[in-house]
This record gives sequence, structure tokens and C-alpha cells, in this order.
Amino acid sequence: MNRFATFISLLLLLGCSDGSSDEKPKTMAGIIDAAGPADWREPNPEQTLYMLLESGTVVFELAPEFAPNTVENVLTLVANRYFDGLSINRVQENYVVQWGDPQAGTPQRRIHELGDTLTAEFYRDAQGLDFVTLESRDAYAEQVGFVSGFPAGNDGSRAWLTHCYAMLGVGRDIAADSGNGTELYVVIGHAPRHLDRNVTLIGRVIHGMELLTTLPRGGAQLGFYETAGERVPIQAIRMASDVPESQRIPVELLRTDTPTFQNLVESRRNRQEEWFVDPAGRIGICNVPLPARLIRPDDN
Amino acid sequence: MNRFATFISLLLLLGCSDGSSDEKPKTMAGIIDAAGPADWREPNPEQTLYMLLESGTVVFELAPEFAPNTVENVLTLVANRYFDGLSINRVQENYVVQWGDPQAGTPQRRIHELGDTLTAEFYRDAQGLDFVTLESRDAYAEQVGFVSGFPAGNDGSRAWLTHCYAMLGVGRDIAADSGNGTELYVVIGHAPRHLDRNVTLIGRVIHGMELLTTLPRGGAQLGFYETAGERVPIQAIRMASDVPESQRIPVELLRTDTPTFQNLVESRRNRQEEWFVDPAGRIGICNVPLPARLIRPDDN
Repeated sequence: MNRFATFISLLLLLGCSDGSSDEKPKTMAGIIDAAGPADWREPNPEQTLYMLLESGTVVFELAPEFAPNTVENVLTLVANRYFDGLSINRVQENYVVQWGDPQAGTPQRRIHELGDTLTAEFYRDAQGLDFVTLESRDAYAEQVGFVSGFPAGNDGSRAWLTHCYAMLGVGRDIAADSGNGTELYVVIGHAPRHLDRNVTLIGRVIHGMELLTTLPRGGAQLGFYETAGERVPIQAIRMASDVPESQRIPVELLRTDTPTFQNLVESRRNRQEEWFVDPAGRIGICNVPLPARLIRPDDN
Repeated sequence: MNRFATFISLLLLLGCSDGSSDEKPKTMAGIIDAAGPADWREPNPEQTLYMLLESGTVVFELAPEFAPNTVENVLTLVANRYFDGLSINRVQENYVVQWGDPQAGTPQRRIHELGDTLTAEFYRDAQGLDFVTLESRDAYAEQVGFVSGFPAGNDGSRAWLTHCYAMLGVGRDIAADSGNGTELYVVIGHAPRHLDRNVTLIGRVIHGMELLTTLPRGGAQLGFYETAGERVPIQAIRMASDVPESQRIPVELLRTDTPTFQNLVESRRNRQEEWFVDPAGRIGICNVPLPARLIRPDDN
């Protein structure tokens, strides 16, 4: 086997191909290559956050459709520079990365006009949402699907964001209203769906996940860092709209309300790549990819 | 709020408690504390592998019930020091860590009496297994449960290991029989269940997962490292039984065929901790914890 064959062989390990074909694309790579401008969207810069770490920038898209008051609270905290100089204090293996004020409880930071408590937004009325249903036998919800690019559950009357990998949530104490947005977390492992409807989710990471997932795990209970020196400083959290346009990270996201997205879902439900011997014929809500990419300069 | 209250508050964020109570324990922590010696088992040292990295040791338990020939091949490779001096070559975000010979295809390493191919062991006869069923509406399998501590699926005639976080599998090329055990991977993110019955799974990580999950992600296609210098050297892979007993890592595992384990599953299906507002009443196969712990010296 020559070097070229080796390269191809490596590409094929664990079931990927480049999807190049003259036919209608049937692989994720092919579908994304064939997607047109209308299949992509740019997140609203007023609903997009940048978390600046020494290692780089994590980008979040917020979900005000599901948690309008909590999103507003977080945006107010961000506008007031609440998170600047705080730190990531907890990294628990296969669970969450969590940040906020390590001195929480001895209120070091003013939270300005905001209250200590905030009515929970664990779910909302299912009415009035453009809910794109995913046919799937979900372990946790009667119905699952996508709303404006976010994975969601639905029981006919209520709808909620689901705790898939990369989702952004609001830590809280025992009281349901104790999460005011000063303590935030991201899911870094297998979806902890038992948290659905028990915590307010407010968005998801759309760029830079690996800056969170590769952080050292904390050695104290629940993955908190044992010493102040281990904490990971947060230089700043900013709304994208507060960052000069030339310095923004130009992420665009594949829309989830299009035929292209439906093709993508079906291509993942029944994998067409030659590598697959026994395509599942099924798919889970947290297994559906939500493609994001950086807009190349020549696309502008 | 004083410092003590703050500490308690931190513990409770995201729904954990210490489970201490005079009643029958209803939390994972309480159930584990109350478990007796018969609830735990030590893995067979002849079916246990140590992967020695510069950062520490990853411990695997093998699953010969599901993949007898592949496990035997891997044990032969290990006995012949096949993996010593090779490297981790691929770390793909929310997917897998994969290792083997980066020069694969230009056969640098003798694989001794073994062949390049090996009949796939993607599933086995469901008969003859002690299959502990988990009541769960699984997206991918008709029935799920546990066999000898491993998560598994079952369609009435066939049974297979499921691609949950921490499972250990055998990379392959297009041909189903092209995975001979020289290329191995571990699931590091959300369960890629579409791989079930498409790859031979041979075990799981029972200690040291964070040594794999925190590795830098590879920048080339599929998460392969772009340069030789990025690869993570594997000092050695050894059978535990080939390591002097005094140097072994004394992991013990909670049995999955006991009333204690059933209590654990139910405690996770319906979370009793005060923090939960809306216990799910449901659980997924890859959400059931499989507790492992180090035996303390005074337990011996």
C-alpha cells in the first residue's frame, strides 16, 4: 500500500468520506458543499456572545425565544462587564464547564439593577414556535426537533431546549429561581438530558468548543478546581455587536428549517457512505450535527 | 451568606448532594456508600490493559464475551509489544481519540503471526448472555441493557456493545474484516450510536478517561494531528497481569447484575435530590453511570 493509499485509508477509518459525487449529494460533506446561500444564516450579533480566554475566543448564540428574561439578564451583566476578570471554576469530566464568581455568596461583584433571583425559564409554551420535528424515539421527550437552530423537546403543550453537547445553561442553587445568570455552564460530554426542564438553557456554543473541552479537569468534588491558581481566567465576555465588525468571528450556521437540513438529517439517519455495513436507520436528537463554519473572506 | 453556605451552595449547583441520610439511600452517592463487598468486582487482570502515557495510565477492561477473536488478537499484539512506541494520532472533538501506527500501510511493524484481516465481531448471538435489561426508549436499539458491566443493545436475536462515552473500539477501513486490532479508538463525547454494529467494540475505559479527553484536538481532516510532533507517544500497552501486583492500579467496578445496581438506575431515572424540580422519570443507556473506584489500601 503506497502513501497515497495510506492517506485515503486514514480518511476512511471510522466512516467518513469526502462525499464528492456527480449525483445528488447523500453525505454530510456533499450536502454542505451543495448548500446555497439561503441555507446559511448569520447569528444576530446582539444575541451572540464572545468569551475571551487566553487560549482564544468561545462564541455563543443565545436563545431568547426560550429564555427571554434570563437572556436579557445575561446581556445586562455582559454590558456591565460583570464577567470580565472572573474565571472558569469547574470542569467535570463528561459533564460541564462552569464559570462565574469564585467568591459567589460573599458578594464581591455588583450585579447592578438586577436581582439575586429570577423566575426560572425551564420551558415555555409550545405554541408560537416554528418547531421542526425530528422523527426519533427519544429516551426523554415525547417529541424532539429543532427551533431556530437549537435542539428542543416538546410534550404538546410545553417546549424546552435539550441538554445536548455544547448547550449553554444557567447554574442555580436549590431554589428554582436562584439562577440569575451570574453562573453559567456548557455541556462538554454525553448529553445530560436529566437536566432538561430543571435548569434554564439560554443558548449554545457555535465556535471554540475545544477551548472548553480540553481544559484540565478539577480535582475537588463536582470537578471544581482545588486551588485559585488552577482557575481559568476570563478576560472578558462581550456582545458581538459591541466588537468592531473587523474583529468579529464570522461564524455562519446551517439553517434547520430548510429542505437542505432535512436532507442532512436523512443522510445521517441512513448513512450512505460505503464504509457503513449496517446504517442505523435511526438518529438521536443530540446526534444530529448543527454545522457551523467561518465565512471565508472571499465570500463577503 | 457565609463561606460555609457558599461551599454547600457550590456543591448543589447542577443537582448533586452527598446523599447522607438515615433512610434507605436514594441518591447515587448514598447507594454507593451503602454498597457491600458483593456489589463490587475487580476486573480480570488478564482482560485488563494499561496504556502508559507520559501523563499517566489509562486502564481498559476488555469484553471477550462480545469480541473473543478481536480481544485475543489485541492481547497478542500487546504481548508482542506491538503498541510500545506508537502514538495517539487522532483526537476529534466530541468524537474519538485514536491510536496506532502512524505509518500504517507502509508496514513498519510486524504483526507477528496475526493476519491483516480478521472477521468482524460487530454483534453476537443474544443467546447465552446474562442481559440485564434497562427499561428505556432507545433511539437506536429495540432493547438496551448491561452485560457484565458493559452497555449493550439487543434486537432479540443479536446483541452488541453500544457506542457510549468511554467505549473502546477497533478502527477499520472500508472492508468489514479490515480491523485487526492494530488501530484502536475511544469514544470521548456524545455517544456516536450510528457506529453500533459497524465497528467491533472490545471494551471500555475504566480509569483515566481525562488523560484522553483533554488532549489537544488534531487540526487535519477527521482530527488527525497535522505533524508528527503533535502525536502523543504511547510508552507501552501492557496486560495488567504482566505488571507486578504492587504496581497495578486497583480499580474496582460496581456490578451491573445486582439489586444495588437496579437501585442506582432507579435513583438516576427519578432523581430524589432536593435540587430536582422535574425528575425525568426516564433514562438513556449512555446516561447510566458505571461506577469505578480505586480500592483504598486499607480495604485490602
